[in-house]
Amino acid sequence: MQVINNIHEHSSHIEVIKDGSIVTPIGFKAAGVHAGLRYNKKDIGAIISEVPANCAAVYTTSHFQAAPLKVTQESIAKEKQIQAVVVNSACANACTGEKGLKDAYQMRKIMADYLQIKEEYVAVSSTGVIGEYLQMDKIEKGINNFIFDATLKNAEAFQEAILTTDTVMKKCCYAASINGVTVTMGGTAKGSGMIHPNMATMLGFITTDVNISSEVLQSALSKVIPTTFNQITVDGDTSTNDTVLVMANGMAKNEALTEDHPDYPIFLELLSTTCESLAKQIAKDGEGATKLIEVKVSGSNNDEEARVIAKQIVGSNLVKTAIYGSDANWGRIITAIGQTKTAVNPARVDIAIGDIIMLKESEPQSFSEQAAIDYLNQDFIQIFVDLHNGDGQGKAWGCDLSYDYVKINASYRT
Amino acid sequence: MQVINNIHEHSSHIEVIKDGSIVTPIGFKAAGVHAGLRYNKKDIGAIISEVPANCAAVYTTSHFQAAPLKVTQESIAKEKQIQAVVVNSACANACTGEKGLKDAYQMRKIMADYLQIKEEYVAVSSTGVIGEYLQMDKIEKGINNFIFDATLKNAEAFQEAILTTDTVMKKCCYAASINGVTVTMGGTAKGSGMIHPNMATMLGFITTDVNISSEVLQSALSKVIPTTFNQITVDGDTSTNDTVLVMANGMAKNEALTEDHPDYPIFLELLSTTCESLAKQIAKDGEGATKLIEVKVSGSNNDEEARVIAKQIVGSNLVKTAIYGSDANWGRIITAIGQTKTAVNPARVDIAIGDIIMLKESEPQSFSEQAAIDYLNQDFIQIFVDLHNGDGQGKAWGCDLSYDYVKINASYRT
Repeated sequence: MQVINNIHEHSSHIEVIKDGSIVTPIGFKAAGVHAGLRYNKKDIGAIISEVPANCAAVYTTSHFQAAPLKVTQESIAKEKQIQAVVVNSACANACTGEKGLKDAYQMRKIMADYLQIKEEYVAVSSTGVIGEYLQMDKIEKGINNFIFDATLKNAEAFQEAILTTDTVMKKCCYAASINGVTVTMGGTAKGSGMIHPNMATMLGFITTDVNISSEVLQSALSKVIPTTFNQITVDGDTSTNDTVLVMANGMAKNEALTEDHPDYPIFLELLSTTCESLAKQIAKDGEGATKLIEVKVSGSNNDEEARVIAKQIVGSNLVKTAIYGSDANWGRIITAIGQTKTAVNPARVDIAIGDIIMLKESEPQSFSEQAAIDYLNQDFIQIFVDLHNGDGQGKAWGCDLSYDYVKINASYRT
Repeated sequence: MQVINNIHEHSSHIEVIKDGSIVTPIGFKAAGVHAGLRYNKKDIGAIISEVPANCAAVYTTSHFQAAPLKVTQESIAKEKQIQAVVVNSACANACTGEKGLKDAYQMRKIMADYLQIKEEYVAVSSTGVIGEYLQMDKIEKGINNFIFDATLKNAEAFQEAILTTDTVMKKCCYAASINGVTVTMGGTAKGSGMIHPNMATMLGFITTDVNISSEVLQSALSKVIPTTFNQITVDGDTSTNDTVLVMANGMAKNEALTEDHPDYPIFLELLSTTCESLAKQIAKDGEGATKLIEVKVSGSNNDEEARVIAKQIVGSNLVKTAIYGSDANWGRIITAIGQTKTAVNPARVDIAIGDIIMLKESEPQSFSEQAAIDYLNQDFIQIFVDLHNGDGQGKAWGCDLSYDYVKINASYRT
């Protein structure tokens, strides 16, 4: 089956920085403290840059964008640069009407005053329960307790402060050579599922010292989001607070990157690698998840259709429960493909789970049930689909659906 | 909240026939036997009409239509009438290639020979595991053991024969007066969820003695499907075998119905009532379900958008788990609405669970948590959404997501 090997992985241009973080790129610092929004966990944090950073961001497409998203969009629109982002967990400040919007502005002002910078240099972000108001006294106290530095300890304090039902911190750090200059990119994220209407949110924060304009950065981010963050799903819904924010402060002093620059593709790959790493960490830490599922589709009409099919498969409750139960139930994969609005030749489909081929040219193949169970008992499961219909390729990531998913979600709010 | 009362329910035109079934309309008989496809449950059945019946059918939109659907479509296309439908459970005869198609034709021939009617008067239908072949010797033996009559016992034998993971039989029977003549309609269905990629299928069979052409019947069926069967969901996937088949044998001898006939709206309502009843019975018997959920949306741009929103809410894993846990988590309802591609004014949304209003003009309302828990502990839950945006209305039905759902689906095939 062609697809098993032909989707390229990261090239040798990208170097992994072990123990790197959001404060590894030159000029970034972080902090995270316990302000009392949650019982016994850090709940507010911030990342700052020594100089105003160019930036790019993408937001939820939900009709109900939360208040902090409106304030952050306004900040970025005003100066096209930001110098700080402050984030609280426990309360999403979503569906909170006029008062919620006022609170988000106030949170931005407190942070700007504390740093003595322009309000418009501050982005704000919130995650937690929908429909409750921010406790502004605690937000203020928390911000005033920030002590910023560039240690791993402080990066981890920030990483922890943004978590909700997550069981692990998500982070990565990579470097690449741009025009002979080493540029570094660090990232962190939260989200124990793409969609947590009540815990509301997938958040991603990426820092880099690359020299790149906000416009080129936004274009690059928009290019990589469809194949990375938008390709994970835990429960099929889109939160009111989803945000991915990239800050590029230029302190690596490389020649400014443009889309025509010969090393722009390397930067795209650096950004894509960072986003994909964070996205997979979120999928793996999906609520109740015991396994990370990766679906690779090839042979579709085009890349977009491949991604649609891959996401449909990885989002199917029946596929997710089958994988939880280590059941090589390829009929459920067929069903997920079958209902997509894509071009599919029903007589020419190949399906493999791991390297075990189960369907070839739409004819069932005999396979060892025991080998399939052994493979499915692992915690990283790959599903391959080849449609023999074109050159389109795409990937998506998700997790299995377990008893714990039901347990977590049947009783979260009360 | 306007919507709580303003979606009309069935009118007084429709009479419920208690203990009625698919054999209550004049001229229909049924049978169901154990052929050994399943261990200890009836597994093949048929409905026959005394005379060839006009008919209408709708099928899955999956790319992977199973073999029996192709054969049934060919039968109906040929004569525009059928006199019998034969259905097996245990094996879906889907993704079975050339051999599967040959088997479906053979099943049709065996039934036609047994009844001594034209092959094209026979529809065939299968439900069960995908990717396995029909055991044709058992199919043949089963058909040859059919003894047809119009008793409730035989109707129930058919109802049982078509079940898979269902825990109860689904059936209904209604009558209405068309031009002074009483016409009767009986229905049965199977499906423990809209989507069972492996148990493959939602099947519905409806009999009626009304006099109506196949063309008008098809048009009527196509009209009511979007608001009935297509508005239920258990796990968000569409099976390879979904079929709803209506047989109208004309034996009530009413003046033939046309779309211009003054009593055509009554017939539409009779058909819609039958389809909605069966659809709700399927949703209620969803795998692992403990509660039936009904979502009513009003104030949308148009009826179609109302249905999209209602189905998105009822299909959300997070809404389903919250209702399983009796958690009045309206933030999850907002999230489901938020991600639909419909016109929504985010500042003007009302949400109620039962008669407890939780959101009004998008401002959170205080409510008694205990009253909400008491309401949610019942087994029929209604959610009302008013968008204050237009006159569109729509309903959808589903069920909660429980530990048993995971249990059933993590281990079905093996």
